[in-house]
Amino acid sequence: MARRPVPQRDQFPYMLPVQVRWSDFDLLNHVNNVVYYRYFEHLVVTFIGDACGVNWAKDPVIPFAAESSCRFIRPIDTGEHNTVNTAIDAGLRVEHIGNTSVRYGVALFRPGEQDASAAGEWVHVFVNRDIQRPVPIPDNVRAVFERHLVPQPQV
Amino acid sequence: MARRPVPQRDQFPYMLPVQVRWSDFDLLNHVNNVVYYRYFEHLVVTFIGDACGVNWAKDPVIPFAAESSCRFIRPIDTGEHNTVNTAIDAGLRVEHIGNTSVRYGVALFRPGEQDASAAGEWVHVFVNRDIQRPVPIPDNVRAVFERHLVPQPQV
Amino acid sequence: MARRPVPQRDQFPYMLPVQVRWSDFDLLNHVNNVVYYRYFEHLVVTFIGDACGVNWAKDPVIPFAAESSCRFIRPIDTGEHNTVNTAIDAGLRVEHIGNTSVRYGVALFRPGEQDASAAGEWVHVFVNRDIQRPVPIPDNVRAVFERHLVPQPQV
Amino acid sequence: MARRPVPQRDQFPYMLPVQVRWSDFDLLNHVNNVVYYRYFEHLVVTFIGDACGVNWAKDPVIPFAAESSCRFIRPIDTGEHNTVNTAIDAGLRVEHIGNTSVRYGVALFRPGEQDASAAGEWVHVFVNRDIQRPVPIPDNVRAVFERHLVPQPQV
Repeated sequence: MARRPVPQRDQFPYMLPVQVRWSDFDLLNHVNNVVYYRYFEHLVVTFIGDACGVNWAKDPVIPFAAESSCRFIRPIDTGEHNTVNTAIDAGLRVEHIGNTSVRYGVALFRPGEQDASAAGEWVHVFVNRDIQRPVPIPDNVRAVFERHLVPQPQV
Repeated sequence: MARRPVPQRDQFPYMLPVQVRWSDFDLLNHVNNVVYYRYFEHLVVTFIGDACGVNWAKDPVIPFAAESSCRFIRPIDTGEHNTVNTAIDAGLRVEHIGNTSVRYGVALFRPGEQDASAAGEWVHVFVNRDIQRPVPIPDNVRAVFERHLVPQPQV
Repeated sequence: MARRPVPQRDQFPYMLPVQVRWSDFDLLNHVNNVVYYRYFEHLVVTFIGDACGVNWAKDPVIPFAAESSCRFIRPIDTGEHNTVNTAIDAGLRVEHIGNTSVRYGVALFRPGEQDASAAGEWVHVFVNRDIQRPVPIPDNVRAVFERHLVPQPQV
Repeated sequence: MARRPVPQRDQFPYMLPVQVRWSDFDLLNHVNNVVYYRYFEHLVVTFIGDACGVNWAKDPVIPFAAESSCRFIRPIDTGEHNTVNTAIDAGLRVEHIGNTSVRYGVALFRPGEQDASAAGEWVHVFVNRDIQRPVPIPDNVRAVFERHLVPQPQV
């Protein structure tokens, strides 16, 4: 585990507030770390659906998750005031665009903070719905990826 | 199953928007019905924490769930436009205040709709944290309950 | 909340062990009460699929949840020995068979115990997949229901 | 994404069957990929609790998750017979033991299969409960790690 820099809020062009639910907390009053992947999933699927215009239910080419990962940098807790109903900001950037796959960088930020509390990667492979084989990223989706591209080496 | 009237939005004095997550949907593109209880839980815990001022981690008297129920009136789906990132409104009213317990009415409303898509009940019993025996509802909490009281017969 | 008798293990003709996951526990080291509905769902769906032979993905008539409820009688915890990997027994009985709907009684039992730790109800309405309107329970499914019938008044 | 070999069942000295729940499946009838992390969590926590003897609630030194990752090699579905109630095997090996941290290799296997359907990593850092700073792995825990050690380079 080499020391890697902590991602910063302004490095993520796509941001989505995610409401934290009471059930997200674990025995230590931190958001459970598996739940982080739920936040990333919601972020990535919203980006693919709302920003890229992919319709999961109908499109002939859809993305499948191929890999994901997360570094847990700092716990996300209920804060000083122990407020139950709060939100965190989930950020996404496109880090690498391949022929049939894309790698996103994803991160979670507590309100008002620059440093990420957690940072991860998520790889989508585009497949033909019927035969589920990799196919090139559709042009309209690729164009949206390029507008959110912040190139990063793979860790 | 006698036909009961469908609860209306304006009958619930406490409302909380709940963000719907992609993972909340089931195979039929409806919000999974067990997830409704997650929404109710978040609603009730937020009401108890933020409106009633109960601190779960420290207070000597805390509420335990004793019963819950839900009628599934209409599916909650992703809507015509299939937008992923959406919210529903969760409403709460206090239906009955006992000595050591309280019954809430809870309901879920799609944006802009008067008719509830789902309606349920949730019973809290107040217990002494140490011995976990029922004790009277603390006065400051009871006062908040009374301000949200919309009496209803038990179904 | 009238005192109702605690259901007994031998009153449930269909039993299914359910593995308790670490993430099922809440801040107080009890299985979170919303998770009980996950156990009931898994129980009911397994009964409908494995015992009744309903194929959710293909059959023209499928059941929809119409109502559910649960009484939380005693917490389910990790036990004296704090063993992480454990199981509880989920029991099902058919309590009432209507024309288009069925009411199950469901309950959770800690290993070796006769008294239920939680008890609930779950109502399925059978619908035509295409138009999603109630239709009579298919005969082959009704026959399985009758073999698991332990009539109970609705609470 | 270089092609990496698919981990094999017999490379994992610690195996735990995990019951698949109906709610684990997604819209495409596959186990949802975030749920894989729930399985890994249950596996790792069971290993730490049952095999290593760590008591999360009381021990002065406890492990925190620092990183996790997963490659999704093949979907996990309900199989030819569409049986609802099934289990998969989750395997764990200790891949690297540091001074204050450990890296596990984790993988999921469908019944009877040698090839992993998914494979990942999970890093635990041991911390002092009170000050939450890294401390050396306790000797008794380290001894168990060594018995499950199958050294692997970090990917």
